[in-house]
Amino acid sequence: MLGLKDLSAEQIGLIIEKAFSYKKHFNSLSKIKKSINDKNILSLFYEPSTRTLISFSVAAGRLGGRINNVSVSASSVQKGETLIDTVRNLEVMGFSALVIRHTHGGAPQLAADNTEMAVINAGDGFNEHPTQALLDIMTMQQYKGDLKKKKIVIVGDIAHSRVARSNIWGLRTLGAEVTVSAPATLIPNGIENLGVKVEYDLDRALSDADFVNVLRMQHERQADQNFIPSKREYHRLFGINEKRLARAKKNLLVLHPGPINRSVEISSVIADGKQNVILEQVVNGVAIRMAVLDLLIGGQDD
Amino acid sequence: MLGLKDLSAEQIGLIIEKAFSYKKHFNSLSKIKKSINDKNILSLFYEPSTRTLISFSVAAGRLGGRINNVSVSASSVQKGETLIDTVRNLEVMGFSALVIRHTHGGAPQLAADNTEMAVINAGDGFNEHPTQALLDIMTMQQYKGDLKKKKIVIVGDIAHSRVARSNIWGLRTLGAEVTVSAPATLIPNGIENLGVKVEYDLDRALSDADFVNVLRMQHERQADQNFIPSKREYHRLFGINEKRLARAKKNLLVLHPGPINRSVEISSVIADGKQNVILEQVVNGVAIRMAVLDLLIGGQDD
Amino acid sequence: MLGLKDLSAEQIGLIIEKAFSYKKHFNSLSKIKKSINDKNILSLFYEPSTRTLISFSVAAGRLGGRINNVSVSASSVQKGETLIDTVRNLEVMGFSALVIRHTHGGAPQLAADNTEMAVINAGDGFNEHPTQALLDIMTMQQYKGDLKKKKIVIVGDIAHSRVARSNIWGLRTLGAEVTVSAPATLIPNGIENLGVKVEYDLDRALSDADFVNVLRMQHERQADQNFIPSKREYHRLFGINEKRLARAKKNLLVLHPGPINRSVEISSVIADGKQNVILEQVVNGVAIRMAVLDLLIGGQDD
Repeated sequence: MLGLKDLSAEQIGLIIEKAFSYKKHFNSLSKIKKSINDKNILSLFYEPSTRTLISFSVAAGRLGGRINNVSVSASSVQKGETLIDTVRNLEVMGFSALVIRHTHGGAPQLAADNTEMAVINAGDGFNEHPTQALLDIMTMQQYKGDLKKKKIVIVGDIAHSRVARSNIWGLRTLGAEVTVSAPATLIPNGIENLGVKVEYDLDRALSDADFVNVLRMQHERQADQNFIPSKREYHRLFGINEKRLARAKKNLLVLHPGPINRSVEISSVIADGKQNVILEQVVNGVAIRMAVLDLLIGGQDD
Repeated sequence: MLGLKDLSAEQIGLIIEKAFSYKKHFNSLSKIKKSINDKNILSLFYEPSTRTLISFSVAAGRLGGRINNVSVSASSVQKGETLIDTVRNLEVMGFSALVIRHTHGGAPQLAADNTEMAVINAGDGFNEHPTQALLDIMTMQQYKGDLKKKKIVIVGDIAHSRVARSNIWGLRTLGAEVTVSAPATLIPNGIENLGVKVEYDLDRALSDADFVNVLRMQHERQADQNFIPSKREYHRLFGINEKRLARAKKNLLVLHPGPINRSVEISSVIADGKQNVILEQVVNGVAIRMAVLDLLIGGQDD
Repeated sequence: MLGLKDLSAEQIGLIIEKAFSYKKHFNSLSKIKKSINDKNILSLFYEPSTRTLISFSVAAGRLGGRINNVSVSASSVQKGETLIDTVRNLEVMGFSALVIRHTHGGAPQLAADNTEMAVINAGDGFNEHPTQALLDIMTMQQYKGDLKKKKIVIVGDIAHSRVARSNIWGLRTLGAEVTVSAPATLIPNGIENLGVKVEYDLDRALSDADFVNVLRMQHERQADQNFIPSKREYHRLFGINEKRLARAKKNLLVLHPGPINRSVEISSVIADGKQNVILEQVVNGVAIRMAVLDLLIGGQDD
């Protein structure tokens, strides 16, 4: 599971269907088949993470698996070992799957090329974050069914967002119409080649949108580089708030991968209101990760 | 389980009774009912901890539960997310209970007001540390039964101690007589309003005491602030040592929440001797945490 | 399991035999008896580690046990507690075994002298790393049977290597002939007293060797101290590469405890070639740790 770029609509559908079936019994632990019973899963995170890691950990635990977490700061990786050597060494200890997050795009692909383990990309550089996009798509389908011809706006730092890229690949494959909106400094050159529209005026973009997926403003990264003049001005032009949504399509739904910056990319009224589906995304995230783990390593022993 | 302030004597008794029953079979793992089987418990620690975290982890494991540890330094909390958002996001992943330690008093209450999870306060600022006080009380009852009219001295940094406050609330509820003793700089104004006596002369305080609960001198915190002139002088005036105990009541028992500073608040002779019940406190800590987890989330599936 | 110094050939044989029997069913998890079912194992690491910790963790999990990891940086150990107090406090929480890594040689012995837990040394200072040596020996036996009179060269920083010392004790006990080779600055005085030969010319040492165990060049440690002039020169004189192995015995096998420094102590051609058994060592490491855990704490409940 390296990215959505190369997945077909059928493959995406299969994963999400399985996730919905897991979600049906979300609180009935005894009804869930321990399909990866006692299997070892290795998480190897070269960037800090809490929620993605916990989401995978909970998902694995529900299926009877165990996650061993390796974060780079505590790791021999710092001792100068290559990624391939690290992966091969850990593999032979008896791990069935590798969940990897890396600062460099392509690292999960490199790992997958050199291991028998199932490899799940949990975010690589500015490239892909496939399970996040799958949970976003699952959430959209939950509220509005088939996404063909549905209009989705992705707003925020498109240039540095693996979430945006994975969403674009997946949504385009499913026939949705995707518009990206952001200050010009945060729109990468040639993004139109991915089949999306660029719209610098967010109000115009939202006027007929079914969903807006609001990216996190990573101000820790922005601060030094002056991509935006100030958080306040960003909020005025690209923030999602009551005033802006009043001008948009009535039943527009708001997604956000979290963690949210209140008053920057999203106002508290919207973050706490009924038009957002953020917590539903989190629930669906566990279901998606259960589905992916089950499809990749479920069932087979020996 | 936010604090002992609002618990009745009956409620405290119920928890401790359950803890004693778990302790009876402490080393017979097969006899313990897995009452929280496969439930997920989230620990969210905004301050470092080893023993409290491990104690909860062992307790949960004995009942068949799983703990996911989130420590703040590795967490998206640092990305500016509010406590309420963090708690709500983690909750919907499928956690039944939250064990939280926070630098600010009241944080567990805030979390509890905004979640369906059972919330267990593992220490909040200078406010409460209820499971510590419960294990202290359990240990006192183990050795001397009913605590009504029993005399307990709490010695050390009362001003900055959540252990002291939780002890005071619990012990007062059970009818014990509590005296606090420390240099004047470490006694908070108005402490008498909690129903305790203040005694600056430790020898006088110990003369008729049944228990002395010795607080840890947190010199990492004291150093800058000159609350005490020197560790040596502190030991002379408020340290628990052989000479001082020779002047106290014969069967006085010494408690300490650990980790101990030898030669500061307690001498090695006492720390290694028969008058202290420190390791018994640690054992009881696991039993108390099993009892609390079982009472809060035991039994119910779905 | 504090070191190989005091183990007999029979004891070493027993552990390795058990490890081979676990290895036979390495990928058939359902065939492995959960011999340490639900037991708690404590890992207490005063130095960072990834692979040793994960190896123990996987080994324990395969036998049904649970590991609680305590690393010093997150630990109350930093609060000035003594090692003995730390160990005793954790012991009474209900741990059956302690896996300890410490910067000071002798720390595991000190722990073992003060606890009822089974203590497994996972590396102490420059003293011993017994499970590493056991997995090295197991790997050598796997390829060439009985080690009596077999010739093993250990090359690298002998002076600062617990791996070297444990290998020397174990191999000598089994009747192997051990030669150490390194720049003179990295050979400790009196090493001959352990029954080994010193040979500064690596080519001569390898001319009739059956195995070469290549130690990791810990350049993070070397850098300040000028033990070696440069990595490049080290590789020329003591690195294992194609040119050097062409001059050695034909079926010489190369071991390395990992993580490897490519182009320093070992060239990529050798690290990726068929003459090294490095990944087999990693597999055997899990089997050895299963064997050690089973022998020390398997079976007994209550």
